[in-house]
Amino acid sequence: MGESITLAVSTVIFALRPHPESQHPVLWLPLVRRVRSPHKGLWALPGGPLGTTEDLAASARRNLHETTQLTPRYLEQLYAFGRPDRSHDQTMPDDRTVSIVYWALVHADVASAGVESDNVRWFPADDVPDLAFDHNQIIEYALWRLRNKMEYSRIAAALLGETFTLSELREVHEVVLERTLDPANFRRQIEATGQVVATDEFRTGRRHRPARLYRHNHSIELADNGPLTGR
Amino acid sequence: MGESITLAVSTVIFALRPHPESQHPVLWLPLVRRVRSPHKGLWALPGGPLGTTEDLAASARRNLHETTQLTPRYLEQLYAFGRPDRSHDQTMPDDRTVSIVYWALVHADVASAGVESDNVRWFPADDVPDLAFDHNQIIEYALWRLRNKMEYSRIAAALLGETFTLSELREVHEVVLERTLDPANFRRQIEATGQVVATDEFRTGRRHRPARLYRHNHSIELADNGPLTGR
Repeated sequence: MGESITLAVSTVIFALRPHPESQHPVLWLPLVRRVRSPHKGLWALPGGPLGTTEDLAASARRNLHETTQLTPRYLEQLYAFGRPDRSHDQTMPDDRTVSIVYWALVHADVASAGVESDNVRWFPADDVPDLAFDHNQIIEYALWRLRNKMEYSRIAAALLGETFTLSELREVHEVVLERTLDPANFRRQIEATGQVVATDEFRTGRRHRPARLYRHNHSIELADNGPLTGR
Repeated sequence: MGESITLAVSTVIFALRPHPESQHPVLWLPLVRRVRSPHKGLWALPGGPLGTTEDLAASARRNLHETTQLTPRYLEQLYAFGRPDRSHDQTMPDDRTVSIVYWALVHADVASAGVESDNVRWFPADDVPDLAFDHNQIIEYALWRLRNKMEYSRIAAALLGETFTLSELREVHEVVLERTLDPANFRRQIEATGQVVATDEFRTGRRHRPARLYRHNHSIELADNGPLTGR
């Protein structure tokens, strides 16, 4: 034959978790160890073949849930990767896979509750091993999109819990954008966008004075995808 | 069987051409009449099945060239459309097609040179007939992306020739964004971005004083797609 194109759906899942050494929050993502050829034994993005009657986003949600037991707060199509040689394997030279990749954001508490096993493990996004196929490149592209979206969208809140302080929100921006932000300027800009709403609750702690908790403004979509929003 | 998913690549191609009545420039796009089931006889986006050893973008370029004889100045992946019922047809109930859609910009002179026939015809983008599959929705989404890209990118130049006046560039923005722009403000903003470079040539005409011609600044990518730029 030599004429088979398989259609797969994979997902890049980001969460903020403390770095094991510095304890500062960094971006993490879960990977799955491949248990069959090609690239058996290598880590890869969660995913699998598209079900024959399954919607693309539903397939991303299903794979995500099956591998990590997680439900994303934010899920968006990233890109279709289809270089003819991307899944090339000596043992199956005629096999070709086109992957439609989604990216998802989950918040830290949920991510901590996600199950890890021999074949599912979370890695810091800047410290992943050599992955199967072109998955290293896919992650690089997903990080780039996350950084770009952060500057004109409201998705940072998807990495946090239901309520958060402005310091926590600024920290998310700092981690993703890889630069420090002036607290007073950040507060002014965020308040001007109307994307967060002050609650009557406060975060209290031993070392800091109480900080007001905010929540995401639910009247604003997490990401504006025009005619496709909400599909 | 009932288990077949076909992978197709289609392309939305935009050009600026005069409206047949007002003679003002508007966005046009070429459509192809389907000569086989499903949806035989309806107009559709140019496209076809992905070749088994063909890159996704190469497939978009090939289909685009075969149907319109055009080479795009700008080509980018738009979105993968895969609703299970999107290609549903009474005569082939088990057939399912997932379409990876590209969008392309060509400039008016090239578009005018494109061949039209009984089965290939250009339509004003806001006046297309009922199309095959979900292609009306795909065009709606492509227009939305074009309008959003225009505001933070440099792709307007892809709709113009090698050189253009600032009035012509402003006109492109006005057509796509569907609002008038102040000429002095537009000039200031465009000059601040460095995205166009003045030439020593002028456009002369009977009714207007000579206007300086500009060209796109080739040191700036038409669209910044991060790690995927230039692929």
